[in-house]
Amino acid sequence: MPSKNRLKYLASLSKKKQRKIEGKFIVEGVRALYEGLNSDYVCEEVFIDAEHFGKVNDLIELSETKGIPVTFVSGEEIKKIADTKSPQSVAALFRVKSNSNLSGGKFIVALDDVADPGNLGTIIRTCDWFGVENILISANSVDLFNPKVIRSTMGSIFHINFEIADDLSSKLNEIKSKGYKILAADMSGKSVKEAGKIESKVVLVLGSEAFGVSTEVKKTADYAVSIPGIGKAESLNVAVAGAILIYELFGGK
Amino acid sequence: MPSKNRLKYLASLSKKKQRKIEGKFIVEGVRALYEGLNSDYVCEEVFIDAEHFGKVNDLIELSETKGIPVTFVSGEEIKKIADTKSPQSVAALFRVKSNSNLSGGKFIVALDDVADPGNLGTIIRTCDWFGVENILISANSVDLFNPKVIRSTMGSIFHINFEIADDLSSKLNEIKSKGYKILAADMSGKSVKEAGKIESKVVLVLGSEAFGVSTEVKKTADYAVSIPGIGKAESLNVAVAGAILIYELFGGK
Repeated sequence: MPSKNRLKYLASLSKKKQRKIEGKFIVEGVRALYEGLNSDYVCEEVFIDAEHFGKVNDLIELSETKGIPVTFVSGEEIKKIADTKSPQSVAALFRVKSNSNLSGGKFIVALDDVADPGNLGTIIRTCDWFGVENILISANSVDLFNPKVIRSTMGSIFHINFEIADDLSSKLNEIKSKGYKILAADMSGKSVKEAGKIESKVVLVLGSEAFGVSTEVKKTADYAVSIPGIGKAESLNVAVAGAILIYELFGGK
Repeated sequence: MPSKNRLKYLASLSKKKQRKIEGKFIVEGVRALYEGLNSDYVCEEVFIDAEHFGKVNDLIELSETKGIPVTFVSGEEIKKIADTKSPQSVAALFRVKSNSNLSGGKFIVALDDVADPGNLGTIIRTCDWFGVENILISANSVDLFNPKVIRSTMGSIFHINFEIADDLSSKLNEIKSKGYKILAADMSGKSVKEAGKIESKVVLVLGSEAFGVSTEVKKTADYAVSIPGIGKAESLNVAVAGAILIYELFGGK
């Protein structure tokens, strides 16, 4: 059983400031934890709701094989650790990565100040579905290790390479010089249906919920692409727009 | 200034039970409120943060033209009324609709127990973008007038026709007899890229986050469609999957 202070420490990692200081984050849920344990992230401790003991034997075994301490806690304690109202049977303490280096693959998704954690997490999950392994994130975006981001990735956080860019436009210009075309999602751009499949290496840039891709970043773009709509909505949610563009530009048959 | 009791009443509408009893819901934000005032929904009262008075003159005028009482409140009071942490300058009290009758258009999106309010709201917003006006919602889905649903629709709640189905499969069979094809989103289905554009009237059914489209509802389907993925993610978020399918099946050029 963890001490009161230890619980307090773990719960404090729901705050960005504390994650920055400690370099740790919390993962919740069986599936996400499997993905984490099988990734190159460092897991420091696994917490298991003692009531669910029998149902997660494999997970306990895997943790022990990897030499990771397993601590049994109550359901209430898991809730505190995992910053969630939903019942979860497991949670774990991981070390953050500050950067994981883009692999130089054909497709990169870049995020220009995406603010909502659910959107960031969902975009990562979508990238993972379509095999887009590289994500470039502006430093002013929501923190990648925010619990809601982690939750929304559904384990995909452990599959992607990411880089945090202090200056997204410089970074994009640098990438451009390596032969990538930069596409900015922009409502005034050309319909993505006309753009068709692109043969070169591509960076797709998605903007913030409130302002879209910034003027500064747009200047680096070779093209602007949009999604044709005929209804009355003013815009699409950024995770939705991103998904449609990723599907159209990078999706398989 | 609203009384303490009135504030309590308005805040209580964040709860489903209370909305069911009262038949009212709260809308927040300038844009959503415009959409609401210009829709056939009944608005009973508009609340304006007195500090933002000068910035929403048009909205005040519009409300007054329509004979809707405008009440000035403090920023703190707006927050209580609107069940949100984000600062909003306006909120309003609307009457719910129990059903708004599907218009018999070419495309219907049906939701089989979608549980997350952000997902439901985002799907409505996406439908509105692509001109899909008719949404059929199983009674076990999250309540349409949940504040997070309303917020995520970004005003699109006021543009769509919806019907709540106590028994979704019976309802789908009824619709089917009117010449619609039923397509169920299902990971084991045929790739939507192979499905191509469908000439007949179509209902696209999206399932719950945890279980997908239920077996019962799948039995009504003419086809199952999937989105091909090559990465490691186990699935796509339902609002994302729905958006890609809507785009591919119903999207324009």
